[in-house]
Amino acid sequence: MSSQPPHATLLIPGPIEFDDEVLQSMSHYSESHVSPPFVNTFSEVLVMLRKLFQTTDPSAQPFVISGSGTLGWDMVAANLVEPGDEALVLHTGYFADSFADCLETYGVKATQLTAPIGERPQLDDVEKALKEKPYKLITVTHVDTSTGVLSEIKALSELVHRVSPDTLIVIDGVCSVGSEEICFDDWGLDVVLTASQKAIGCPAGLSILMVSGRAIERFEARKTRPTSYFGSWKNWLPIMRNYEAKKPSYFATPSPQLIHALHTSLSQILSRPLSARFADHRAASLKIKKAVTALGLQQLASKPENQANGMTAIYLPEGIAPPDVLPSLVKKGVIFAGGLHKEIATRYIRFGHMGVSVTDAGRGDIERAIGYLEEALGEVGYKVPK
Amino acid sequence: MSSQPPHATLLIPGPIEFDDEVLQSMSHYSESHVSPPFVNTFSEVLVMLRKLFQTTDPSAQPFVISGSGTLGWDMVAANLVEPGDEALVLHTGYFADSFADCLETYGVKATQLTAPIGERPQLDDVEKALKEKPYKLITVTHVDTSTGVLSEIKALSELVHRVSPDTLIVIDGVCSVGSEEICFDDWGLDVVLTASQKAIGCPAGLSILMVSGRAIERFEARKTRPTSYFGSWKNWLPIMRNYEAKKPSYFATPSPQLIHALHTSLSQILSRPLSARFADHRAASLKIKKAVTALGLQQLASKPENQANGMTAIYLPEGIAPPDVLPSLVKKGVIFAGGLHKEIATRYIRFGHMGVSVTDAGRGDIERAIGYLEEALGEVGYKVPK
Repeated sequence: MSSQPPHATLLIPGPIEFDDEVLQSMSHYSESHVSPPFVNTFSEVLVMLRKLFQTTDPSAQPFVISGSGTLGWDMVAANLVEPGDEALVLHTGYFADSFADCLETYGVKATQLTAPIGERPQLDDVEKALKEKPYKLITVTHVDTSTGVLSEIKALSELVHRVSPDTLIVIDGVCSVGSEEICFDDWGLDVVLTASQKAIGCPAGLSILMVSGRAIERFEARKTRPTSYFGSWKNWLPIMRNYEAKKPSYFATPSPQLIHALHTSLSQILSRPLSARFADHRAASLKIKKAVTALGLQQLASKPENQANGMTAIYLPEGIAPPDVLPSLVKKGVIFAGGLHKEIATRYIRFGHMGVSVTDAGRGDIERAIGYLEEALGEVGYKVPK
Repeated sequence: MSSQPPHATLLIPGPIEFDDEVLQSMSHYSESHVSPPFVNTFSEVLVMLRKLFQTTDPSAQPFVISGSGTLGWDMVAANLVEPGDEALVLHTGYFADSFADCLETYGVKATQLTAPIGERPQLDDVEKALKEKPYKLITVTHVDTSTGVLSEIKALSELVHRVSPDTLIVIDGVCSVGSEEICFDDWGLDVVLTASQKAIGCPAGLSILMVSGRAIERFEARKTRPTSYFGSWKNWLPIMRNYEAKKPSYFATPSPQLIHALHTSLSQILSRPLSARFADHRAASLKIKKAVTALGLQQLASKPENQANGMTAIYLPEGIAPPDVLPSLVKKGVIFAGGLHKEIATRYIRFGHMGVSVTDAGRGDIERAIGYLEEALGEVGYKVPK
């Protein structure tokens, strides 16, 4: 029985529903950010993140910093590239435009490789692009929250290592870490950046990154100083290393309450095999995608291999707009998100299925949401095609 | 009776002890960052911040962004000055060095005006410096957390307006907002930046700023783009304006739980006249400073007019170092902080007295802390001079 007051179930692609124990950790009494108990908690968080990202390489470096997923882009742009450097940005929706804008803010030349809405750049096209210029890094949105398109990280990384071995591989995992498999070491990744409030299941307010030893070396060899202060790894690297070694250290004040909540959510995630967690997300996603098809609806992500396991972006039937169904869904007890991709925002809705709503089957969140969606569509005159 | 488990009372200069109701707000169930109830809460927070900063000028703009106090420096450096611009940094401790380093990260030339430890630059010296160069902005740490030195904002601002009227006046109020009087409009300030976890009494994780209409105009007239992405007002200004007008809006995901906690703490602060709150902090501070003197100890801030009302930095007696007393104080039940100013860190401790520990006299925090300090010093052989 949840200790949370009754509320509509939040099934947007982040923030997600949080477990009671995680929310209770948010109320932790006040601690000094340099006290041994807090530093110990922070150390354990960093160690658990290594497990979540499936890295055992001691030269890889986790970072947890107050901010949001977006701050991770700044850290990449300010620490891993220098003004005038070239970056290749793979476009699968809204978030590639923004990451490119961020890179350009720091004087980096960002070239976007696009694909039609609902698709992802093909590996052949990526190979061609990589052969044109020596890109310092390539960025890819693992799951684009605006479209639900899933990128193929493993094959992409193999390609980059083969064709352009000096190009750092940067994954925007804001909407994938915790719901999609990520093998940091095995896949040869350099940065996976994410946030706390999606499949990790901890309230928003933390920027989380895993950075390879190779990327840290690249950072340490840069000729110019990092071009951000709050996001500078020159400032944060010694702090993260000290925290993990349980030594008090200070650059900017972390949020003890959020760190406690992250500790709780990571402990829950790691209490069983990661493979089981990813299988749960795949199973829930399949069930939802089947139901969407049974309702006669299309997804933005048109091919099964392009479809995220933690969210589904659904085209509404002709003549029905998000405001026709979202408010009545809230009244029934479930919150979906509207469209976010500018060109088609008024034509689709987004259904997030990550974390406890998926792993705690007893909640019945997914089944209720599917049922309510069918009801809401019926109420505005939609008839499922026979 | 507190609902928090028993713990040593946190009396460092931030984070501070939090009220039960504030901590309970941290456990708020998950909400969409664009839902009407959350947007309404955010709007009320922005309106309450105007009251806390004592501004009624509609052109002034509050910002609340996930991060820490430090992020406020980045926002100043990235939005209000352009590479090559000159800034004058008044030095009263550790935090001026860091603010200057931040400005230089963004290509701004920072000139520091120093004073001996425990003192602040004199107005005559500031006047002289301002006459030497056309500084785009001047920064001053209202209370330097490393030294407990209080700056004189009102007189300083009058001087700047008189001598160098185009220079923006930027106050680092991380350790002053909520415990020291700040009259944003009346004193003609351009930026006051702060964080949530000190005298505002909300857990860490939020960067909070009030920016004058004049500074917003300066930002809008800049020739180059802002030099940060996550901290760019180009990205945040429309969001903050929309939130205040109760319109859903998205740039980066805020932390609903922290915003709820801030809403609770601001509601508590504004439930009585601000003048009474500042008087409480002055009275508690006087009591502590008297007790320190009665113990035969000196403060870093040597003159009464230089002394903060929300913290006291205390030189330990000759031959006694922070590790000789801080652990035994924790065992007794109170947590003080060690020294932070590099040159003298091993010679002093810091006692924070902000928020509920001061305004809720029934807690007895201040009296207990003074008593424990006397005991702890006695246990390592210190005798109060007769």
